[in-house]
Amino acid sequence: MKPLILITNDDGVEAPGIKALTGVAREFGDVVVMAPRNNASCLSHSLTTQRPLRVYDVTKEEGLEVYCCDGTPADCVKLAVPQFCTRKPDLVLSGINHGSNSSINVLYSGTMGAAIEASVLGLNAIGFSLLSHNHQTDLTPCIPYARQIIGHALEHGLPEFVSLNVNIPHISADKIKGIRVCHEAKAQWLDSFEQRIDPRGQRYWWLTGKFVCDNPEEDSDEWALTNGYVSVVPVNADFTAYKAIESLKQLE
Amino acid sequence: MKPLILITNDDGVEAPGIKALTGVAREFGDVVVMAPRNNASCLSHSLTTQRPLRVYDVTKEEGLEVYCCDGTPADCVKLAVPQFCTRKPDLVLSGINHGSNSSINVLYSGTMGAAIEASVLGLNAIGFSLLSHNHQTDLTPCIPYARQIIGHALEHGLPEFVSLNVNIPHISADKIKGIRVCHEAKAQWLDSFEQRIDPRGQRYWWLTGKFVCDNPEEDSDEWALTNGYVSVVPVNADFTAYKAIESLKQLE
Repeated sequence: MKPLILITNDDGVEAPGIKALTGVAREFGDVVVMAPRNNASCLSHSLTTQRPLRVYDVTKEEGLEVYCCDGTPADCVKLAVPQFCTRKPDLVLSGINHGSNSSINVLYSGTMGAAIEASVLGLNAIGFSLLSHNHQTDLTPCIPYARQIIGHALEHGLPEFVSLNVNIPHISADKIKGIRVCHEAKAQWLDSFEQRIDPRGQRYWWLTGKFVCDNPEEDSDEWALTNGYVSVVPVNADFTAYKAIESLKQLE
Repeated sequence: MKPLILITNDDGVEAPGIKALTGVAREFGDVVVMAPRNNASCLSHSLTTQRPLRVYDVTKEEGLEVYCCDGTPADCVKLAVPQFCTRKPDLVLSGINHGSNSSINVLYSGTMGAAIEASVLGLNAIGFSLLSHNHQTDLTPCIPYARQIIGHALEHGLPEFVSLNVNIPHISADKIKGIRVCHEAKAQWLDSFEQRIDPRGQRYWWLTGKFVCDNPEEDSDEWALTNGYVSVVPVNADFTAYKAIESLKQLE
């Protein structure tokens, strides 16, 4: 039986990134797409608990079923696996996100929230992101790397409770030097809110800020991306800081 | 100068849990509360980017300022630190959440999303949760443990990029055996969506499911809670699965 690949994203079912990723996935097996109906960026791992979800049929053809719903990316995975997949998916993909999810952006990312959820469900999962927010950006430089990493995951599987956070630099295909397996770079968002006054004299605040990552280490994702590599960071769904346990034992 | 403690939660500014935590924090220093105006559960680490935030004054007295806003718990921390704290907070608290955030529930938790955000900002941060969803539950058994852990964090600090996920069993004070420093238990949510038909014949799905954690290890939070201990799990804001890097190097 062909592999079954479930795909979601956080830019919405109509985004060019998910269509490109669906094209690659179909080379490997049957595909089910369940994606947010609209943009669902920055929703991290959030779930919809206060209202039910609606699902909308988009297209159905040989080897491909596309649905969208009014939930978050993590909802899409949770809902699609038991309800819309006829068998257990061999792989869950999220993206291709329009914008970086490197470094600490994995914390906020709906794309990676979906991938982490899949890993918690015991599934192999990969999130892909391109370092351009422009939906018109040419996605073809991403394709060979998506193909290689998907092929690897289907052949070898991924470690338990681990998903992959793949970021692709926004440069022409011939400038990309290859793949680097990395850790998250330490970084910060600075100056993160801008205060404004509305026409009625009331204050309100826009989230803004500047991503700062000074002197990233050579084995970090920011270094890899800055130097023309595709970065692959394995992401742990167990958030325990094991190294910190010993020093806290005096609390007992 | 007295310590400054910033407090948020995900149950909303009027929840009994945040009021109890504020009471304990005021024993240690000046307190600023910035909490969601309404319930913001299961929002994980999500941020509000598509609309601005509004802030509402709740109360102001000697050593205590209380605000609420229409954002997520992580928004509350991001917004309050630069805009509503006159100095860098010595400690950020989140909770006391009405309901467990143990094991994999840390992934979905708005309470812990706020604490993790604070740790990314370089601040000491602790999330507290009581294993009861009932807002009428007596919170007094939580108080001595909150006091001890807050005192410890103010005196010794916490490891960089690490926040604490504290869960308190829902049993009477004399039954609580003490504190255990733990790792997250491996667990799963099973059967996670219930399909219904609306009066117009259309399908919709409610998130539901059963939390399953069989035979938790003795050094895990689920074991500690089941056996009458307060669990303290150090949470890493760096999600890299370092142990998986080597096995993935063949991708390069």
